[in-house]
Amino acid sequence: MAKKYQVLGVGNAIVDVIARVDDSFLEEHGSEKGSMMLVDSAQSANIYNSMPPTEEHSGGSAANTMAGIAGLGGSAAFVGKVKADQLGSIFRHDIKAVGVEFLSAPAVDGPATANCMILVTPDGQRTMHTFLGACVNLSTDDISVRDIAEADVVYFEGYLWDMPQAKKAFVEAMEIAYEEGSQVALTLSDSFCVGRFREEFLDLTKKHVDILFANEDEIKALYKVETFDEALSLVRKDVAIAAITRSEKGCVIATEDHVVTVAAEPTQVVDTTGAGDLFAAGFLFGHTRGYSLKKSGKIGCIAAAEIISHVGARPIEDLAALVKKKLND
Amino acid sequence: MAKKYQVLGVGNAIVDVIARVDDSFLEEHGSEKGSMMLVDSAQSANIYNSMPPTEEHSGGSAANTMAGIAGLGGSAAFVGKVKADQLGSIFRHDIKAVGVEFLSAPAVDGPATANCMILVTPDGQRTMHTFLGACVNLSTDDISVRDIAEADVVYFEGYLWDMPQAKKAFVEAMEIAYEEGSQVALTLSDSFCVGRFREEFLDLTKKHVDILFANEDEIKALYKVETFDEALSLVRKDVAIAAITRSEKGCVIATEDHVVTVAAEPTQVVDTTGAGDLFAAGFLFGHTRGYSLKKSGKIGCIAAAEIISHVGARPIEDLAALVKKKLND
Repeated sequence: MAKKYQVLGVGNAIVDVIARVDDSFLEEHGSEKGSMMLVDSAQSANIYNSMPPTEEHSGGSAANTMAGIAGLGGSAAFVGKVKADQLGSIFRHDIKAVGVEFLSAPAVDGPATANCMILVTPDGQRTMHTFLGACVNLSTDDISVRDIAEADVVYFEGYLWDMPQAKKAFVEAMEIAYEEGSQVALTLSDSFCVGRFREEFLDLTKKHVDILFANEDEIKALYKVETFDEALSLVRKDVAIAAITRSEKGCVIATEDHVVTVAAEPTQVVDTTGAGDLFAAGFLFGHTRGYSLKKSGKIGCIAAAEIISHVGARPIEDLAALVKKKLND
Repeated sequence: MAKKYQVLGVGNAIVDVIARVDDSFLEEHGSEKGSMMLVDSAQSANIYNSMPPTEEHSGGSAANTMAGIAGLGGSAAFVGKVKADQLGSIFRHDIKAVGVEFLSAPAVDGPATANCMILVTPDGQRTMHTFLGACVNLSTDDISVRDIAEADVVYFEGYLWDMPQAKKAFVEAMEIAYEEGSQVALTLSDSFCVGRFREEFLDLTKKHVDILFANEDEIKALYKVETFDEALSLVRKDVAIAAITRSEKGCVIATEDHVVTVAAEPTQVVDTTGAGDLFAAGFLFGHTRGYSLKKSGKIGCIAAAEIISHVGARPIEDLAALVKKKLND
């Protein structure tokens, strides 16, 4: 494990546009609570125009995970497409500022940098409307063999499968990772995303994925089963490591031989955006350092608890110091 | 007082770019804590590149005040210049979303929408670096006689005086306000701004200003005196109402006949950005409703306490409900 990056993330490069709303706002706009919906530019404008005042934070699922790994003191790189516009500058600034290598050149033309309008309800849940913008131009050219070879783990977000023309590039990258001795990790992103690509995700999981991240709903949706235990017994046959989050019940890490559970860290929930992303950051940071599944899962839970205690999906506290303190408690 | 707007604000239309830094960051960049410095695009890029990850919020001093008045349930309009770019869209969205009428057309060319890089130190103090961008193109054409005539109070921020070519427009607008029976309010913005324009501000104060907002440092700088009491006795001769904030000591409202003091609202200071802006919002909201100086000052203190309890200079809580509750306590 002496590669340049502990983790190379591939994902959508997105600026989050965050507002607090009541549940009635979701009803008025036909938004399913907790989901991520794709919107075109007209739908995007329509929702934005009716949104309360917002605040903007860099986001993107895999990008948040890479920011988390860097915040923990790890080495991370990110591949994702922005345009050379104001939001693109903000995205690039923020990911570099936290210490992540940003490996993609911004697009000079085409659609604007992606944004995700995140509606946070009083229960802390987030409902997302994503305009993919420049992300749709992510291609094979953006993912170099050399970068993949330099990563212990190459991490893909399920949301990437919303871009039909780029899927081939991701599968190629997974194959290169295998050849170069890098592990492949995938997060299922959300249960609606699993619904859109169930067959593809199952196929990927069996053929290419070493480490699968999912929450309880997502893993049940992937295997079309009713209970968590059924899903767990199935996923253990398909991947080397399954890291499953269960909200306030903490997480379950399963391999063929072992099942480890870790309790959730107590915290006050303000905004659940990024909980799964930061769990993955903590777990991957620990795993690529050679820590046990239990300790890696614990770091994941600590990082997730930090992120849900404030607005925005990138850490505010010094994660490395926080983990050090919590592990010693 | 049956005009369309309680207050029409004229100011710089700015998106805030906020990061938490240690005091050492200010020292390394030669930034004077608590000040607002103007930067050109090269200096702006230089500071931004060394800043930690940021979050973006709509800002601008007078714009924050108008947002506060709307949040209190009042009627407000804003004049300020953005460009037709992504940050300009964010600024326009946020001020309209809170219920303020935004009266200025965005510029189609010229410099980008203004930004203010705000460095928040652990003591909650903010140090600002402003790139004025599109604001420099604010002109007489943007301030219509009709809009001024429809406001009980026309409110100007001192920072406007950083734009040499537009000063004539502001003085004209003040004269129109007088003719149309609208009161003129001015905030001195900060003591460095007073330093840049002391003679002009003194002249304006004597000739055109009905309501002057300042903090203790600013009012002492305006009159070049050592003590608050000296400054207070001088300002009472120059304006109908002086509303002076004194941080944790609350505020003093002075007229020729009366001096009223109001205690600060207890709160936990996270980020002092916008404290003066929201005090002005609360005071002007009360004053234009015909409330007493004491009650108006109290509403100002309540609004200021809300804003310093979180990051960002626009209210998060329902200010109208908060004021109702606090006034009944």
